[in-house]
Amino acid sequence: MKPTILISNDDGIESQGIIRLAKEIKKFATVIVAAPHTQQSAVGHSITMSNPIRMSKIFYNKEFFGYAVEGTPADAVKLAVHNLLKEKKIDLLISGINQGANTAINIIYSGTVSAAAEGTILGIPSIAVSLASYIYKNFDAAAEVASKIAKAVLKYGLPTGTLLNVNVPPVPKSKIRGIVITKQGKSYWNDVYEKRIDPNNREYYWLTGYMVKTDKGLEYDVSAVEKNYVSVTPIHYDLTDYKTYEKMKSWKLKL
Amino acid sequence: MKPTILISNDDGIESQGIIRLAKEIKKFATVIVAAPHTQQSAVGHSITMSNPIRMSKIFYNKEFFGYAVEGTPADAVKLAVHNLLKEKKIDLLISGINQGANTAINIIYSGTVSAAAEGTILGIPSIAVSLASYIYKNFDAAAEVASKIAKAVLKYGLPTGTLLNVNVPPVPKSKIRGIVITKQGKSYWNDVYEKRIDPNNREYYWLTGYMVKTDKGLEYDVSAVEKNYVSVTPIHYDLTDYKTYEKMKSWKLKL
Repeated sequence: MKPTILISNDDGIESQGIIRLAKEIKKFATVIVAAPHTQQSAVGHSITMSNPIRMSKIFYNKEFFGYAVEGTPADAVKLAVHNLLKEKKIDLLISGINQGANTAINIIYSGTVSAAAEGTILGIPSIAVSLASYIYKNFDAAAEVASKIAKAVLKYGLPTGTLLNVNVPPVPKSKIRGIVITKQGKSYWNDVYEKRIDPNNREYYWLTGYMVKTDKGLEYDVSAVEKNYVSVTPIHYDLTDYKTYEKMKSWKLKL
Repeated sequence: MKPTILISNDDGIESQGIIRLAKEIKKFATVIVAAPHTQQSAVGHSITMSNPIRMSKIFYNKEFFGYAVEGTPADAVKLAVHNLLKEKKIDLLISGINQGANTAINIIYSGTVSAAAEGTILGIPSIAVSLASYIYKNFDAAAEVASKIAKAVLKYGLPTGTLLNVNVPPVPKSKIRGIVITKQGKSYWNDVYEKRIDPNNREYYWLTGYMVKTDKGLEYDVSAVEKNYVSVTPIHYDLTDYKTYEKMKSWKLKL
């Protein structure tokens, strides 16, 4: 029997990346799409609690039947799994294909990764897939990568609480040098807020900046992708810093 | 010389928790406040990239001079450190006092913790402080705890990339049994979306549910707080699952 795969993203249900992904995954799986109705980048792991969430069913582009959710990526996944698909067993969740890398510290701001994290929290093996460029528009290689890794996860499984964060270099398949298992990079952002003045003479700020790339070698996501490898990083949400946990036992903390 | 402490939160600059915190910390430090102008709970680690951010200076309640930022907690911290306080050295960041626990998986949805995480990313030792109740309104004990732990961090320091996530039980100081160093709990949510019909006959959903408390013993945040201890969990944002990283090397992944 075909596996059932839930597809979500943060770029919205009408984005090119999710359509290309669905087209590829349909080749071997029953695909269900539940995604935000509009672009939700850099939402981090937001969920909507103070407001109601709405959902509308749509058909799109002949590739899929999808649920458009008026909420964040995590909302879309939560609502799909809890209410829309109650009866169905989901074998795998894929979030993507995102336009833009989700490597190093970017992971924590990423709506794409948060959709996969939500899948993991709900007990579904999950994968986040990103194409590491904002301008390269050919999702073919990334879709093929997603398909390969989805099949591998269906075969090997993933530990409870762990998801795979996949980043694909923005080059044709023939230029991709391989797939490597990586760690989250240590590269960081040098943020700059550009100060501007609006027509009413009020100040406002735009976030901009550049990534300071400190990672070398194929063991880190950032540098693996730069060298035209696909990076596959297993990540989890046990944030405890165990080393510091042990060390802090010598702190004298009394009320 | 007095240390300089930046205070932020996710409940907004006018919330009771941040005012009480500022009042306490002012006793030994120069306090600067930069916080969202409105409530931002469950925003996760969102940042605003597609829209401009605005900032207005305000005075509030005689306790502090603060920057109200029209954005998320991470936005407020980023903007404060990069633009508003460029010249100043920040010795410590405290985010809080949040109304409601930030323990176990809640950490990843938490705006309070994300403000502290942003501080950590910017190289500032950071602490997130939450009062583990939505209804208990006495922040006195939590403020005193925040002050104690702030002083400890100023004394002992924190490793780069690690923040302290502090949860205070909702009881008077006399009922608090102590301060324990904890790990992030494994408790999880049993989400329910309540389906309703609006006056125009459209469906909508509210997120609700309850936490399934699987943690026992004082070494986990959830159960420590339940037993009326203050929990202090060192957390970091290296999400790599190193065990799975090693295991996956045997996966055969080829394009």
